[in-house]
Amino acid sequence: MEDKNILLTIAYDGTNYFGWQRQENEITIQGEVEKALSSLFNQDITIRGASRTDTGVHALCQLALLKHKTTIPIERLPLAINAHLNTKEIVITNATYVDDSFHPQNSVYKKTYQYKIYNAPFLNPLMRNYAYFVHKSLDIQKMKEACKYFLGEKDFKAFCASGSTAKTTVREIYDLQVIKQDDTVTIEITGNGFLYNMVRIITGTLIDVGHNKIKPEHIENIILSKDRQKAGKTVSPCGLVLYKIYYK
Amino acid sequence: MEDKNILLTIAYDGTNYFGWQRQENEITIQGEVEKALSSLFNQDITIRGASRTDTGVHALCQLALLKHKTTIPIERLPLAINAHLNTKEIVITNATYVDDSFHPQNSVYKKTYQYKIYNAPFLNPLMRNYAYFVHKSLDIQKMKEACKYFLGEKDFKAFCASGSTAKTTVREIYDLQVIKQDDTVTIEITGNGFLYNMVRIITGTLIDVGHNKIKPEHIENIILSKDRQKAGKTVSPCGLVLYKIYYK
Repeated sequence: MEDKNILLTIAYDGTNYFGWQRQENEITIQGEVEKALSSLFNQDITIRGASRTDTGVHALCQLALLKHKTTIPIERLPLAINAHLNTKEIVITNATYVDDSFHPQNSVYKKTYQYKIYNAPFLNPLMRNYAYFVHKSLDIQKMKEACKYFLGEKDFKAFCASGSTAKTTVREIYDLQVIKQDDTVTIEITGNGFLYNMVRIITGTLIDVGHNKIKPEHIENIILSKDRQKAGKTVSPCGLVLYKIYYK
Repeated sequence: MEDKNILLTIAYDGTNYFGWQRQENEITIQGEVEKALSSLFNQDITIRGASRTDTGVHALCQLALLKHKTTIPIERLPLAINAHLNTKEIVITNATYVDDSFHPQNSVYKKTYQYKIYNAPFLNPLMRNYAYFVHKSLDIQKMKEACKYFLGEKDFKAFCASGSTAKTTVREIYDLQVIKQDDTVTIEITGNGFLYNMVRIITGTLIDVGHNKIKPEHIENIILSKDRQKAGKTVSPCGLVLYKIYYK
């Protein structure tokens, strides 16, 4: 019997994990899902994720490819795996068959991240792990104006943390929105891919715009400068959620 | 120098606490706030809360009365107390002077609670401590229809947990809304007061309505029966937030 190609959708609260990727001596999301699968199937299982997420970053739709001969009906598989995950912090929310040609990274053509900012005089304890707390009032209109300068295919070197191994720093941003609801500001960004810490640096830069430290129209110069020092700081991972992955 | 009457507004994540009220050998919200105040003022401090909340219940606006001669400017007091709270789970968000006549329970004339339900096939790990997970689809229209039967001044004995010491089980409900946004259903209820577990039992009953186990128009009979057995179950505390307290 041949292995089946199964694509898992995984939601997780990254607060207590050293990111997605399996690591020796660290508790990671990939590591925990592989442990659950190995326990379910009684053999060592490895999976391949679509997107690495850093320590503390969350996901509502991480994707990972599992190759296995399992006879568990596909619609029952999430429940079966969840029963072996001894936590409510990681949940398999879907399983579906994919072609042999499916590649967990190369088949992805678009991703959406959400970054949440809680903007009020005092921290909201219910959001402490899910939003970045900014007590100084943000000029949302200015932040909205700044969005258009990020759109399109550009070299985002100024928005890439050092230590990146990416071959090129060119990426295309399809959409960038700033949405305010009560005291929560959500930044939603969709692109063909993102550099290391790119969403968190773009958010840090938009916060500087919201605090009138950077003018919206100055974003263009920051991008052209390719100078990481010109962009805003890398904000906390806790506000970041891998929101959606689109694949062929 | 006379004591000043200071009303504190307190937000908290109740997940890891044995409710609001101070208890020997248990970690409670009141206990932690009193510890912080005692540390700040270098003397034993007790406060009086407006509303008890149970283990696991959250609050965005609990109120508590502090009597103290402090010379710390009132607008600086929240920051000063927060600096002595060694957690981000409890935050003092406001402090204001109130009259000598202010009573932390009797001066309250209206309260609003919110109860969140996450209604989807699988648990959302980001909401696991802040919403009650219901996987079976809810008929929101039916739930909305049921709301009107709760409005007004009624004997809510059927919606009161045993062990209550309330003198009367008559309460007035001013407003009850069921609001759906994506997979989250928020029940918002405002009344002049609530019996023990009343919001959680009303929510459990509305969930039965949403699952077509109870007809909306049958709510009237349940109330008239004054029989706890006729109402729905007491749902988890994790979905409940003390949202607003109105005082004279």
